[in-house]
Amino acid sequence: MKFTIEKKDAQSKARAATMVTDHGVIETPIFMPVGTVASVKGVHQRELKEEINPDIILGNTYHLYLRPKLDILEAAGGLHKFMGWDRNILTDSGGYQVYSLSANRKIKEEGVKFKSHIDGSFHFFTPENVMETQRTIGADIIMAFDECTPYPCDYNYAKRSMHMTHRWLDRCMNHLETLPFKYGYEQTFFPIVQGSTYKDLRKQSAEYIANAGAEGNAIGGLSVGEPAEEMYAMTEVVCDILPEDKPRYLMGVGTPINILENIALGVDMFDCVMPTRNARNGMLFTAHGTINIKNKKWEADFSPIDEMAITFVDTEYSKAYLRHLFAANEYLGKQIATIHNLGFYLWLTREARKHIKAGDFTEWKNMMVKQMDKRL
Amino acid sequence: MKFTIEKKDAQSKARAATMVTDHGVIETPIFMPVGTVASVKGVHQRELKEEINPDIILGNTYHLYLRPKLDILEAAGGLHKFMGWDRNILTDSGGYQVYSLSANRKIKEEGVKFKSHIDGSFHFFTPENVMETQRTIGADIIMAFDECTPYPCDYNYAKRSMHMTHRWLDRCMNHLETLPFKYGYEQTFFPIVQGSTYKDLRKQSAEYIANAGAEGNAIGGLSVGEPAEEMYAMTEVVCDILPEDKPRYLMGVGTPINILENIALGVDMFDCVMPTRNARNGMLFTAHGTINIKNKKWEADFSPIDEMAITFVDTEYSKAYLRHLFAANEYLGKQIATIHNLGFYLWLTREARKHIKAGDFTEWKNMMVKQMDKRL
Ligand SMILES: [Zn+2]
Ligand SMILES: [Zn+2]
Repeated sequence: MKFTIEKKDAQSKARAATMVTDHGVIETPIFMPVGTVASVKGVHQRELKEEINPDIILGNTYHLYLRPKLDILEAAGGLHKFMGWDRNILTDSGGYQVYSLSANRKIKEEGVKFKSHIDGSFHFFTPENVMETQRTIGADIIMAFDECTPYPCDYNYAKRSMHMTHRWLDRCMNHLETLPFKYGYEQTFFPIVQGSTYKDLRKQSAEYIANAGAEGNAIGGLSVGEPAEEMYAMTEVVCDILPEDKPRYLMGVGTPINILENIALGVDMFDCVMPTRNARNGMLFTAHGTINIKNKKWEADFSPIDEMAITFVDTEYSKAYLRHLFAANEYLGKQIATIHNLGFYLWLTREARKHIKAGDFTEWKNMMVKQMDKRL
Repeated sequence: MKFTIEKKDAQSKARAATMVTDHGVIETPIFMPVGTVASVKGVHQRELKEEINPDIILGNTYHLYLRPKLDILEAAGGLHKFMGWDRNILTDSGGYQVYSLSANRKIKEEGVKFKSHIDGSFHFFTPENVMETQRTIGADIIMAFDECTPYPCDYNYAKRSMHMTHRWLDRCMNHLETLPFKYGYEQTFFPIVQGSTYKDLRKQSAEYIANAGAEGNAIGGLSVGEPAEEMYAMTEVVCDILPEDKPRYLMGVGTPINILENIALGVDMFDCVMPTRNARNGMLFTAHGTINIKNKKWEADFSPIDEMAITFVDTEYSKAYLRHLFAANEYLGKQIATIHNLGFYLWLTREARKHIKAGDFTEWKNMMVKQMDKRL
């Protein structure tokens, strides 16, 4: 993987860069749509490619491991071929989903034992076998197996957990060291900074992760319920330590405003279920604020969904029609809202990139943050 | 509306024709996809137009009357504008849905009182107000308000019901006679033949309907559970009486085989929820038989969904991937299967048309009926 910074913003830590992998170029900053179980819910692959147009999407190791399972993914020649997506894919480590099972998992030094949410069967994830799983899924970027702490988190728990995440990182890297790439193309490994909302732990973790010398680095354990200001404070501490010449990925973030603020702090990559999940609940993100399309106020508003016309849905359907689809519980409503929101998120990161390159990012960002902080 | 027969098959009663309305040309035989509540479930309008490519779709008066309601449809300028569909639309009369409410409706000479399945509110449909409703929805072809009898149906009930349907027809026509078109374009009225599975009643009803002198005629009350042979027998009796120089629409039919057999008996237009409903349950129709994509046998079959490549889904996704989407309960699976099935149904009626014009329809039909009668 080759990472090249093209432009740094003078008034913030934002940067425009490109990553080149065996599946093509990733222009950053970028938002990665979440394709949980080999599908971005409700979106055809061709719509994803042609309309939303991300250079990279995300798959969830936990979900893919349970369905369609590794033997099928391996027989298909990896996830790209299985789902028909020839651009980049990143997989998480499955850690986040496993911890979310709360009562149905047990974390030990060796790894995590958990019960499938599908059939109640027991499984065991270790740093080593999760690397194997991600090799078999075949994403271009694969993530370390870490523990994602909840918010709020007791200091001592956060500290112990962080050290275990560091030990697990060593195990992940030791395991990968000896292995060839499974499908002929490169798989780039990213370690993950933890440390909850404690600056000293975040600093310590960022130093440990930076020292690991990976080709890219991630920040985990944020966007788990903490106030935005705490999130930004952690991102700032961490970004100042993580190497500047490598991509930085902030996991699970966030609102359009969160994304712009974190770009300003030096983050290059984002993923989040918010644009897709909220779309399915009728919430639309736009450059001028959020819309709850279920509201009666849109009932007879026959204007286009979004005059900005980022994707075809924005002008081919009206607000009144979309509102009707939600009222009638027609799935097409969720499809339309999902394409709209993802189109908007990708527009936002592309636009951020443009303004970084044009030299007016901070000004634009401040204007957008104000403008998007409204309910229409 | 202008109806022109282009070619009659020598060995059957099949014909290839065109209907011209203010929303364009309808080439027959044709299958009309069902867009129940202003949406063909799970299909974007552009996919419907570009991939499935029907000249006409169907909307359900009962559903549209309840949601989005007539005031919204009227404010939008009719259903075409509301849903963004500029080709032809046909609406049913709502009768079929109302009768399906069984315990929640009461049929009298004046009309039908029923309870909404959405909020339990009471409504009253009469031949007159259903004509008004369909005028407001604004379809190009609107249907008479009839009673659709169940199968099996007591002879005397079927006879009394048929006569009421005839009286209701007169009321529909009287009501429409004096009225201008609501949105400037023509709305063509089709009466409906009833008579259950009784040849003498069907004959009597077909004569009554033929005498009404409408621009097109429909056959109702079939595909309600009767054996296919009984359906064909009724279609044959009725088609022999309905005027040859006007389009014949067989309501609610059916399987691909039903459609070909009824084309051979002189039917021009069809609609049915089968391709869309069955798609959502994982059943695919193909030229070589039906596929239950949920079966484990497709789990590692990475071949395209359908080598015939009628729509983009057929080759952009594999059977294994589609099976996975159903197993994981991902809505994209239903979207893919729906586009496939509708694409296939429209291919089938287009292909029937080609073979009628080429003069080898019967031969082709017999081959297809054999070929499609398989489970893959
Ligand atoms: Zn701009
Ligand atoms: Zn042919």
